[in-house]
Amino acid sequence: MSANRREFIKQGTIAGAGLAGMTMVSNDLFAQKKEKGKKAAPRDESIVRVGFIGVGGRGQGHVHDSITVGGIEIVAVCDISQDSLDKAKQIIAKNGMKEPKFYTGHDHAYEEMLKSEELDAVIIATPWEWHVPMAIASMKAGVPYTGVEVSAANSLEECWDLVNVHEETGKQLMIMENVCYRRDVMAILNMVRTNMFGELVHCRCGYEHDLRSVKFDLLKNDLKIGKEAHSEAQWRGLHSVRRNGDLYPTHGLGPIGTYLDINRGNRFLTLSAMATKSRGLHDYVEDHAAKESIYRNIQFNLGDIVTSMIKCANGETILVTHDTNLPRPYSLGFRVQGTNGLWRGEGGGDWKDPAQEIYMEGQSKPHVWDPSEPWLKKHDHKLWREKGTLAEGAGHGGMDFIMLNDFFDAVRGKKEVPLDAYDAAAWSAVSALSEMSVARGGASVDFPDFTRGQWIKRRPHFAMDNQFPISQERALINNLF
Amino acid sequence: MSANRREFIKQGTIAGAGLAGMTMVSNDLFAQKKEKGKKAAPRDESIVRVGFIGVGGRGQGHVHDSITVGGIEIVAVCDISQDSLDKAKQIIAKNGMKEPKFYTGHDHAYEEMLKSEELDAVIIATPWEWHVPMAIASMKAGVPYTGVEVSAANSLEECWDLVNVHEETGKQLMIMENVCYRRDVMAILNMVRTNMFGELVHCRCGYEHDLRSVKFDLLKNDLKIGKEAHSEAQWRGLHSVRRNGDLYPTHGLGPIGTYLDINRGNRFLTLSAMATKSRGLHDYVEDHAAKESIYRNIQFNLGDIVTSMIKCANGETILVTHDTNLPRPYSLGFRVQGTNGLWRGEGGGDWKDPAQEIYMEGQSKPHVWDPSEPWLKKHDHKLWREKGTLAEGAGHGGMDFIMLNDFFDAVRGKKEVPLDAYDAAAWSAVSALSEMSVARGGASVDFPDFTRGQWIKRRPHFAMDNQFPISQERALINNLF
Repeated sequence: MSANRREFIKQGTIAGAGLAGMTMVSNDLFAQKKEKGKKAAPRDESIVRVGFIGVGGRGQGHVHDSITVGGIEIVAVCDISQDSLDKAKQIIAKNGMKEPKFYTGHDHAYEEMLKSEELDAVIIATPWEWHVPMAIASMKAGVPYTGVEVSAANSLEECWDLVNVHEETGKQLMIMENVCYRRDVMAILNMVRTNMFGELVHCRCGYEHDLRSVKFDLLKNDLKIGKEAHSEAQWRGLHSVRRNGDLYPTHGLGPIGTYLDINRGNRFLTLSAMATKSRGLHDYVEDHAAKESIYRNIQFNLGDIVTSMIKCANGETILVTHDTNLPRPYSLGFRVQGTNGLWRGEGGGDWKDPAQEIYMEGQSKPHVWDPSEPWLKKHDHKLWREKGTLAEGAGHGGMDFIMLNDFFDAVRGKKEVPLDAYDAAAWSAVSALSEMSVARGGASVDFPDFTRGQWIKRRPHFAMDNQFPISQERALINNLF
Repeated sequence: MSANRREFIKQGTIAGAGLAGMTMVSNDLFAQKKEKGKKAAPRDESIVRVGFIGVGGRGQGHVHDSITVGGIEIVAVCDISQDSLDKAKQIIAKNGMKEPKFYTGHDHAYEEMLKSEELDAVIIATPWEWHVPMAIASMKAGVPYTGVEVSAANSLEECWDLVNVHEETGKQLMIMENVCYRRDVMAILNMVRTNMFGELVHCRCGYEHDLRSVKFDLLKNDLKIGKEAHSEAQWRGLHSVRRNGDLYPTHGLGPIGTYLDINRGNRFLTLSAMATKSRGLHDYVEDHAAKESIYRNIQFNLGDIVTSMIKCANGETILVTHDTNLPRPYSLGFRVQGTNGLWRGEGGGDWKDPAQEIYMEGQSKPHVWDPSEPWLKKHDHKLWREKGTLAEGAGHGGMDFIMLNDFFDAVRGKKEVPLDAYDAAAWSAVSALSEMSVARGGASVDFPDFTRGQWIKRRPHFAMDNQFPISQERALINNLF
């Protein structure tokens, strides 16, 4: 794959250079598209032309939820799996949409799609190692809005590629971190912005999710992983063979990043990480593989629990947990703690979960947690107040709908994306940085400043809600610029 | 104080040297005492002669609970506060016990007590900076059993002093970590030892306790800290002025240390720690000090939240939290996670707390937490099964009684203490090590091996329960020696 990738990046660069004069500024995209698309019939300019790269389970969800959001035309769909394409085709037909063009046949079919189609937006939901090559190709092909699944990147070099190509091409890149749009997470954002928690000092988050049955295909009396397996077991499990760090930090760090104004008045400075020994995946193979299975010989590099501590420029610390190899109930393990109180957001976002609690000095009974539901209801976010009913039935409790709605809203309005290339780079960088720190026995390692100093004066931007404006205390420094 | 302390240590060394020939071996103590104590009337040898150093709030609790345990004679009590001595006197009288001799008048009155009295055990409950000088003096004075409150020591040098003097004198030192004796904590110990959780990989603990009203004396329209203040505000708050690290790690680390066989087949290897900015204590002064108060000028060094990650020789990691400056409900934030399941022990030890949960693969409903109560009941520890009813009404939900009972049981049986000088040193070392790591921006720092290599073959020892013996899987390596 690495030879292919190098080859592709070369091609991508050439293609990008060729297009550079034409599509450097996204604002005049629609004009250009008109000029370029002479053969096309007159069309409704408010309809967003979308291409999907990767329509496995996750991509199919995006196809479905994007249709529910509405105002889109699915122009093209690309995948190397005929089965996945068939399923996407069915979803599109069932919803009465025009059949798109399909691209398939080889790993780089998406390049043909990007060259041939006129697209306002591309959504990428492929194996992790393809996120950056595809996002870069999309931006370089002149697509004004590219949405990429999480985690966005696997190495610092890839993080920089996302940022640099975004800056070179002027194209928008959004990291599609759906948990930033979880209903409780957004209500907490409103509480943070209105300074209910006071000055934030410490946050926690993580990905505590027993993925053993995702990393492996469980068969009758056997299991598979890697190219012989299906779905995510084909590729996702393999990251646990080769890597030892926080492989999947953004579901937690995305929300925390928005709370702490990361890249917009604050930034991640340093990280120290430790990994435990690796037992869970080995045990799973022992328990489920056929007696003679070659998988019994695999040594997994990934420690069962990886904990990372991050220090921020404004003095806050963040604890990030990665816990995917052992039996346990699901949790994103949130904590948001300030000088006036804190939120304990264990579990999966259920407002009635007893492990979802809030303590607010002067308002809660001294030393006693409040159930979070009344607090969350009172601070429900605009995007949910307006679209909550529509979101019902969409992926992951509706947050996928709210996210796609926000993405397409940016596309249609030719606005900056809500979660941008710098967010993608900073949040995803935790994977590579934690690998380095773990390898160095918990040594402190440095975050790159992907904004090249712009974080000092950039302003908060994600999911503004007029009803819950940013407090003066919180905007204190921003207001000095 | 430091000049006084140096002076004392010098005296202590001389005194220790003088006694060395007489009391080097604790086993023949009673014989020696008989010989030495010619003036004393014949006495019941099974009665433990106790001296208390420090009878403030905590020490008074120990006096009361020790009487409840029974089988003791309170020979002497030392404190610099007449008020505290009066209160201890009342407790002793109210319980129909003989009045002890009182030592007071100056900071080193305890040395007179140690020189003059024949004691089987001394219990030290004084400000942190006095724990080590007093414990050393007690061991050097030939007292066979010294119990010292937590944290035992404030620096690595002090940790070594405890270990070295224990080894030089042959006297027993117990760290009186009461949370090791909390009922749920001991039930979890039984579950750990019988391998219910499988192989342990990751643990969490902490001290999440809003101490603002302990660190300060809150008056009407004012507050005080330091020598003008009362009780713990006199000294405990001052540690937050000068130090930035985990000031109080043992309530969490004690139990985790017993679960992970620290110093007995395992050890703490390295630590990385980060501290947040410091806001809580400053805000508290702003809110509560008189307008003209000099306290308004204090800069507190202690970050509001300090998180430390520890790597163990056997590949486990531990996360330790120190969170004492901000409004929040109390929790020791336990987690014990193994290859078969985990315990989430939030809160203060209430078995019915909904944040106290257990998940056990193959037994719990998949992906759903069990309430912990049935699990804990089923694994209730011998010490609680036998003495739980007596413990009721004693300090901290009864755990103080269970601890003192275990301490006096060791004294009476001339046994090794349950939690020893190596435990005191290793657990307390986290304070000094976290200060170092925080100062170095989260750099990894090394634990001393206080056992000087003996951890490799030492065996688990604390609170054995025949009904829940150590499993073969867990004793695997120990059994090779």
